[in-house]
Amino acid sequence: MESKVRVAIVGSTGYGGVELIRLLQAHPYAEVSSVISSSSAGEPIASGYPHLSEIRRDLLDDVDPAAIGAKADVVFLATPAGVASKLAPQLLEQGLKVIDLSGDFRLPQSGLYEQWYGKPAGDPAYLEQAVYGLSEIYGDQVKDAAFISNPGCYPTATLLGLLPAIKAGWIDPDTIIIDAKSGVSGAGRGASLGTHYSELNESLKAYKLNKHQHTPEIERFVSDAAGREVITTFTPHLVPMSRGIMSTMYAKLTKERSDEEFVELYREFYRGRPFVRIRPVGVWPATKEVSGSNYCDIGFAVDKRTGRVTFVSVIDNLVKGAAGQAIQNLNLMMGWEESAGLQFIPMYP
Amino acid sequence: MESKVRVAIVGSTGYGGVELIRLLQAHPYAEVSSVISSSSAGEPIASGYPHLSEIRRDLLDDVDPAAIGAKADVVFLATPAGVASKLAPQLLEQGLKVIDLSGDFRLPQSGLYEQWYGKPAGDPAYLEQAVYGLSEIYGDQVKDAAFISNPGCYPTATLLGLLPAIKAGWIDPDTIIIDAKSGVSGAGRGASLGTHYSELNESLKAYKLNKHQHTPEIERFVSDAAGREVITTFTPHLVPMSRGIMSTMYAKLTKERSDEEFVELYREFYRGRPFVRIRPVGVWPATKEVSGSNYCDIGFAVDKRTGRVTFVSVIDNLVKGAAGQAIQNLNLMMGWEESAGLQFIPMYP
Amino acid sequence: MESKVRVAIVGSTGYGGVELIRLLQAHPYAEVSSVISSSSAGEPIASGYPHLSEIRRDLLDDVDPAAIGAKADVVFLATPAGVASKLAPQLLEQGLKVIDLSGDFRLPQSGLYEQWYGKPAGDPAYLEQAVYGLSEIYGDQVKDAAFISNPGCYPTATLLGLLPAIKAGWIDPDTIIIDAKSGVSGAGRGASLGTHYSELNESLKAYKLNKHQHTPEIERFVSDAAGREVITTFTPHLVPMSRGIMSTMYAKLTKERSDEEFVELYREFYRGRPFVRIRPVGVWPATKEVSGSNYCDIGFAVDKRTGRVTFVSVIDNLVKGAAGQAIQNLNLMMGWEESAGLQFIPMYP
Amino acid sequence: MESKVRVAIVGSTGYGGVELIRLLQAHPYAEVSSVISSSSAGEPIASGYPHLSEIRRDLLDDVDPAAIGAKADVVFLATPAGVASKLAPQLLEQGLKVIDLSGDFRLPQSGLYEQWYGKPAGDPAYLEQAVYGLSEIYGDQVKDAAFISNPGCYPTATLLGLLPAIKAGWIDPDTIIIDAKSGVSGAGRGASLGTHYSELNESLKAYKLNKHQHTPEIERFVSDAAGREVITTFTPHLVPMSRGIMSTMYAKLTKERSDEEFVELYREFYRGRPFVRIRPVGVWPATKEVSGSNYCDIGFAVDKRTGRVTFVSVIDNLVKGAAGQAIQNLNLMMGWEESAGLQFIPMYP
Repeated sequence: MESKVRVAIVGSTGYGGVELIRLLQAHPYAEVSSVISSSSAGEPIASGYPHLSEIRRDLLDDVDPAAIGAKADVVFLATPAGVASKLAPQLLEQGLKVIDLSGDFRLPQSGLYEQWYGKPAGDPAYLEQAVYGLSEIYGDQVKDAAFISNPGCYPTATLLGLLPAIKAGWIDPDTIIIDAKSGVSGAGRGASLGTHYSELNESLKAYKLNKHQHTPEIERFVSDAAGREVITTFTPHLVPMSRGIMSTMYAKLTKERSDEEFVELYREFYRGRPFVRIRPVGVWPATKEVSGSNYCDIGFAVDKRTGRVTFVSVIDNLVKGAAGQAIQNLNLMMGWEESAGLQFIPMYP
Repeated sequence: MESKVRVAIVGSTGYGGVELIRLLQAHPYAEVSSVISSSSAGEPIASGYPHLSEIRRDLLDDVDPAAIGAKADVVFLATPAGVASKLAPQLLEQGLKVIDLSGDFRLPQSGLYEQWYGKPAGDPAYLEQAVYGLSEIYGDQVKDAAFISNPGCYPTATLLGLLPAIKAGWIDPDTIIIDAKSGVSGAGRGASLGTHYSELNESLKAYKLNKHQHTPEIERFVSDAAGREVITTFTPHLVPMSRGIMSTMYAKLTKERSDEEFVELYREFYRGRPFVRIRPVGVWPATKEVSGSNYCDIGFAVDKRTGRVTFVSVIDNLVKGAAGQAIQNLNLMMGWEESAGLQFIPMYP
Repeated sequence: MESKVRVAIVGSTGYGGVELIRLLQAHPYAEVSSVISSSSAGEPIASGYPHLSEIRRDLLDDVDPAAIGAKADVVFLATPAGVASKLAPQLLEQGLKVIDLSGDFRLPQSGLYEQWYGKPAGDPAYLEQAVYGLSEIYGDQVKDAAFISNPGCYPTATLLGLLPAIKAGWIDPDTIIIDAKSGVSGAGRGASLGTHYSELNESLKAYKLNKHQHTPEIERFVSDAAGREVITTFTPHLVPMSRGIMSTMYAKLTKERSDEEFVELYREFYRGRPFVRIRPVGVWPATKEVSGSNYCDIGFAVDKRTGRVTFVSVIDNLVKGAAGQAIQNLNLMMGWEESAGLQFIPMYP
Repeated sequence: MESKVRVAIVGSTGYGGVELIRLLQAHPYAEVSSVISSSSAGEPIASGYPHLSEIRRDLLDDVDPAAIGAKADVVFLATPAGVASKLAPQLLEQGLKVIDLSGDFRLPQSGLYEQWYGKPAGDPAYLEQAVYGLSEIYGDQVKDAAFISNPGCYPTATLLGLLPAIKAGWIDPDTIIIDAKSGVSGAGRGASLGTHYSELNESLKAYKLNKHQHTPEIERFVSDAAGREVITTFTPHLVPMSRGIMSTMYAKLTKERSDEEFVELYREFYRGRPFVRIRPVGVWPATKEVSGSNYCDIGFAVDKRTGRVTFVSVIDNLVKGAAGQAIQNLNLMMGWEESAGLQFIPMYP
């Protein structure tokens, strides 16, 4: 165990943090050396999460950048918006590698962050330095980086589904509409009427229409792929399930294409990447088919009548949409195989 | 009770049939006089549906058109595709009023029916005679009709959400995209892997992309409102809940409009109609807010950035999407107040 | 409408209060004249409960005993523990009829209340005056009462299932074990980790073992039926569903009995009572079979091998376990037919 | 990989079989060499289970005992009742090791099997030879065995919860009552009204009261622990969730004991066993806390008032209740560490 890379997790008592702990438990080259929480410092992590009983006996550490540096080589920040913007620079200055799972470093312009998040943005120097860790797209930059901004859950499902078609010029980016659906764990562990069982069960709701903070993140990288500024329509929905995201996406074809061509294009694009799976023609993925795993599964439906293509892209929001992709990025950063510690089968049913 | 209108329900052992029984129980002017099922004739209806114990003691009648005529004034057909096309003419010829909840008479051209349903269509004379019972839109024709084709669940939510904007010319019909989500009861009571609890729970899936039989029904009435032929993109999804449909719909504005204008347009359009409720600006309905009731609730989100408007329209698929709207049409046909027997509050939570 | 009895609901923004509003909407002789909430006074009730949009346009009134007296003939108290003990006396002194849905007046001895509820009990004079409104058992006393203590949800399912057998001497009360399971709405609308969707979904948990405050309420009336003091084992569980309670109950038979004898005993006991339904031999009720309704459905399983009988009793916790039974008691108090406003079919599926 | 033990799974298209595939994927010493199904032979296993896409590319083999012997060292039988009784002897005669996950070899007397399963029992010689694989209790016998009968899901949760107290003489076995609750995956993947989403969601039901085939299995080993014949009351319930079993169990204490004593007794009893976790006093496990894992978590509540103790024992029915325990037994049989391939953290939330 001595030779394993030591990992600290700030925000260990949130769902993202606790999922990092779950996934890293089986990692061959990394180990969790410090679980950190500002709200419950000093308590055993298992007291708030009994599923960790007798597996993780750690006490939660307080947030102390200097102490973190003494205990860890890499730090995951699984913190609410506005925390990483202050904490990441202090950790980076100590020479630590940092992977930020929050949205604090996903938008390069301070103004955009402040507009969509309603909080002051971080130091512009660090905003520029952060590499966006959509592993399958920006993996080459991740390899050389010390500071990763891990993508949001909705953007991960959305961008992996759209980017190959945009880069190939097969769809008109100006016609993109994203109808996204998430399980409730995406809202975090905070108790509110918005996460109350009796309010959500047997119900479906749309929220933050045209206002969700993942919109500019999606547009940033759609624009990057299109080579020009693109704006999109993005509607998130809350589905009565704990885990899972589906992005159903629509766009006009630039010329007639078949389902077979899309399957071929995507299989080629993601060749060699272990975590994107393309469904055959006429089959679309369900969220349960990736539950608990780092897969992103994608299917297509071309409609000759309308000249549109529909994309269906699913992930587990806590794995590929958060903790799993963060570990995938860790693997790339450290020069390990991309799938180290992540090679397991989705839990079904 | 003697003076109540006598109603027979063919297909009483399906979810649509049993919901008709539930709703008619409280109707002031109609009563269920015969519950009919080809599969379980002779058995007490309560033996397959214990929630009816000691409330409905009827034995199920077999499907016998002559016998139905002797027992009923009005017949509801809550049967699988392909049954009503044969049965409705036999009932109408006896002078009975018929409300068909299946899709058999929703498409006026035989060819279209056969293309989308994969079954032979009914007699063209009856296809033409059937009045499409989207109560708020075609209520005037319903009033004079003896034969109603009750709308599908997805078309009801979709058309009530779209038609006022189309008729007003506020959106470009060619840009309409319909992302629809349904609870599992929409798939009926038949047992299959597609309705298996462990397969659906904690999962979300898209199905029949560009192939769902409600697509031509939606297009027929969107075209009717637009005054020209319109084709649309329609994607249904299955959500882990029993009841509820949400249609999230997207279209380009023909000129800049505000959310306030949409709210005003729709409130004016549906003024005096008891079952459509328009949410205020910035609020969107959840399916639970109409559960068990005949309401269709609608909200809007105009996006100045993209020039698009998003519509969110919800119903209970078994009530406004089936049995409730059928009774609403019965009320209109019989000259009763539109909301007779339907004036109850949604069940929440 | 002038001649309807005017009803005020204190605690209108809780699940019990809002269910009273739903059920009273269809009541032939009573109408809601005032919806009252200490926390949201002045706001429209529909703003926190959009399912009431355009149905209930009332603003919430503040809690003011004198004002209540001016607006209402009967007051329902759907308030947290500790409120009714102070408020009920002030309302009764004005000559109002009061039905308290909280636990404040269910235990006649102050000490017992304080032990199990951890709060000071109300005035002993009122504790004695309150009639326990288990309608099928104590309906005769309810008829003459001005002040009803409406039973708890668990005690309703439990006592209706056990009392006929105890009164008949068929089971040994000292051997009674009650394994009870509730949907989440029983925990109220307050947001906490204990009502968080992601924590409860796909999970089952036991809680408050041997400590639940409904234990002494159950024991009080089991003892009353047995004619001597009885103590029981009571275990509540939280089930991932919104509504419904099942009590599975076990006891030793005092002599050999058959399932048929139990069915017969119970059908005779509840003859003429509209809301208790006894399942035939070999059939047990599911909670969905009473959802949204005031029914209590009961089934039996005698085991000759062990000499025990198992009872399965189900209710909708918000209806027969709260608001519905409160209205049933109102009907009895006012001399109306017992089922007035409650004669509807459970919502299925 | 050459040196890994080769495992064949008969019944690979059931939930138990597919869970074996999931768990064995990460096993350090064993690998799945053949996936076998009588119903879908020749098809890719991933076509019926898309979550396995690009992970398991195997085609399903037909059930052919000789062919199995050529491909495997160990055979797991995850088959419906009545299959293993014929198949296991043919495999054992070839010198293969066999772990049967069905109930065919759990009852040593043919008559008992035929009474509870309603099918002819297997060859009595093999009934006697089969070692009951409740790993924590009969692990020593498992170590020397070639033929394991893997315990049922309900018996696993129940027996692990009860046996230490029975062996210690702390409870009266004649007073044991078992109220058990299971998620729907326990009913298998077969489609029926009994596994239909809309019928089960938002519902709770009891079934097979006093008739469940796991009753004699529980009684066999309770009797074994008590040293005399014991009969019990066992009531299974179906809970609206996919995975998880909870057994809530009741018994009279033989003398006064404290919660602390129970915690101590059980911690001592299971010392060194990696998969049983004892909750501290006043804390009881929820099924979600073991989801996807091989843990059995147990809590206690002693009630001085009644002289009874309540046990709460939870497992994941597909892991510790089926596939996980089968692998645990494989580990013991092969002399590997007991937890090989099973050392992962439950999936939460």
